[in-house]
Amino acid sequence: MIGRRDFAKLSALTLAWAGLPSYGQNTYTLQKPIGYAAIGLGTISDIFMHACAQSQMAKVTALVTGHPDTKGVKYAGMYGIPKTSIYTYETFDRIADNKDVDAVYIGLPNSMHCEYTVRAAQAGKHVLCEKPMAISSAECRKMIDACRQAKVKLMIGYRVHYDPTWMQAIQIIGSGGVGQLESFQGGFYGQQPAGAWRLSKKLGGGGALMDLGIYPLNAIRHITGEEPTDFTAVVSTREQSGRFTEVEQSMEWTMKFPSGVIASCGCSYGERGPSFVNINGEKGYLVMEPAFHYDGVHLHGEVGGQQIDQLGTGKLPFQFVLEAEHFANCIRSNKEPESPGEEGLKDMLAIEAIYKAAGAPIA
Amino acid sequence: MIGRRDFAKLSALTLAWAGLPSYGQNTYTLQKPIGYAAIGLGTISDIFMHACAQSQMAKVTALVTGHPDTKGVKYAGMYGIPKTSIYTYETFDRIADNKDVDAVYIGLPNSMHCEYTVRAAQAGKHVLCEKPMAISSAECRKMIDACRQAKVKLMIGYRVHYDPTWMQAIQIIGSGGVGQLESFQGGFYGQQPAGAWRLSKKLGGGGALMDLGIYPLNAIRHITGEEPTDFTAVVSTREQSGRFTEVEQSMEWTMKFPSGVIASCGCSYGERGPSFVNINGEKGYLVMEPAFHYDGVHLHGEVGGQQIDQLGTGKLPFQFVLEAEHFANCIRSNKEPESPGEEGLKDMLAIEAIYKAAGAPIA
Repeated sequence: MIGRRDFAKLSALTLAWAGLPSYGQNTYTLQKPIGYAAIGLGTISDIFMHACAQSQMAKVTALVTGHPDTKGVKYAGMYGIPKTSIYTYETFDRIADNKDVDAVYIGLPNSMHCEYTVRAAQAGKHVLCEKPMAISSAECRKMIDACRQAKVKLMIGYRVHYDPTWMQAIQIIGSGGVGQLESFQGGFYGQQPAGAWRLSKKLGGGGALMDLGIYPLNAIRHITGEEPTDFTAVVSTREQSGRFTEVEQSMEWTMKFPSGVIASCGCSYGERGPSFVNINGEKGYLVMEPAFHYDGVHLHGEVGGQQIDQLGTGKLPFQFVLEAEHFANCIRSNKEPESPGEEGLKDMLAIEAIYKAAGAPIA
Repeated sequence: MIGRRDFAKLSALTLAWAGLPSYGQNTYTLQKPIGYAAIGLGTISDIFMHACAQSQMAKVTALVTGHPDTKGVKYAGMYGIPKTSIYTYETFDRIADNKDVDAVYIGLPNSMHCEYTVRAAQAGKHVLCEKPMAISSAECRKMIDACRQAKVKLMIGYRVHYDPTWMQAIQIIGSGGVGQLESFQGGFYGQQPAGAWRLSKKLGGGGALMDLGIYPLNAIRHITGEEPTDFTAVVSTREQSGRFTEVEQSMEWTMKFPSGVIASCGCSYGERGPSFVNINGEKGYLVMEPAFHYDGVHLHGEVGGQQIDQLGTGKLPFQFVLEAEHFANCIRSNKEPESPGEEGLKDMLAIEAIYKAAGAPIA
């Protein structure tokens, strides 16, 4: 059994290895924080803004909303944002003139990611965009091109890349702790309320695969460093309440990677279930459950013949703090983000292949 | 949170519901125990014989082995079996005359299950056969017919059907604790040493799917009471050491049931990994991990909006004790076993369909 002390050492090693800032230990206080404009003031942006308030490296300095007099005024008051820095979707492009804004955080419905990434790039602002990157690979390419042309950075909000427990898992695998990788199982299951924008094909671009299935998909791509080539999928919509007239309720799928690693994954917008991964190797394995929650990520398994068990101690919104600080650091140091636009594009190509295998075209 | 006391109540209810004997509380001591002949004295039979020694309802009264002078004499000494009740595969049919033998326990390689079930039935003995029932659905049908003609009972050794933690899970689902069932994920992963009979196509009839994949397959069939109709599968053999020249190393597959329930499952003979299931419903879910181990089955999840967490307390070989006693009770009371031959046949039909979907025919 590897104890807490050994894990603390491992954690420190992991952080050094990953070259990422360690939450709560940042030493950037002498520099002015990176200013973010939050675009779309829904649940996820609320969390992101709360995260920035906990950081000395990131600060929300502008808001973009369809409700400037209500939501805009409310969040401006909460975070000390001048009223002149509240924009609507119509006035958004004027943000080019706002020197307090270095970057935007896009927390909009999926179908709006492309347009606002392109407009932000054209306004000369760096872009931190929520996952899924967009609703098609064509849109993803457009976003990458726009940011490249404007010479701004583009990062996709894969928050678990910045979670220390996930980083430990990645480090264990990378250092051979489970031997040659053999297979992966993962899933993320939840309920979406009737009327949610995620249940609209036009806004979401697809169903649970776009928003939840992307987690295990990205995890195994991230772990292997490979792109899957063979896909099978099965979709099901048991519920006839009317919630699932445009997008699938539930999906399970398999993938094979060029190395021979195989995976099965699943997701749902219409069931309760865990978020989990099993990462199985020749000599050991890791289980994470919950794996994709905002906090409480729980890692256990068998490494080097020993049982390990580690519960993440960070609390919501700590993953968002780490994410916001990572991108701030990339902007300050002119480095490429760990989860750039290309990562979002690769996931979208796989998502399109999975929908095709399921016989449910994304378009 | 449902506490231990509530779970004890639930457990008592479950046992009452399932109509199965409760381990350690049996009241059959006034009757002569059912006499089993153990056929094949490998690892699994060793466990089964050890289990019978812990029971007042079951007793090993004869042995069938290719090594009568070594293994035969050893186990005869351990369990007080007369030397006249040690048989070889050649002399086996004489067991018809042994009145101390009511039933046989078949712990042979998969390819021998059919022959010894038929010969046991013809000798007038009841049959408790290990899973997988055989190596083809044609063999399964032959076994069912032979037992029916001989008017003997046939049970397949699906040991987790008799595990109290599994019975709790089944009871929770059956009483609507997770609402309408939506999806299932499960797997069982392990390493087989070079030279093991399970790596021989001739003896095993197939690879990991036959011996390990059958666990999640049987679990979701058992839970839904339905037969899967749509299958996809992916196989992989990364290892080139020579272990996997006849059977697959690893497999992941999906299934869809007529109700719309979907499942993804996996198994391997060449990796370390957990044994697990997720049972996801409209209103709650159950996770078991480990799910298919000999003991320590761990159940947790969300039932009625509350978190539950329960660790099985039985120790190896308690599942085998419960299994041996269940069949003994069926014989005494002239009842059908909870896991009859038809259950083994249905799994074999699904296994054949999975191999077909994988492009790896079983024959």
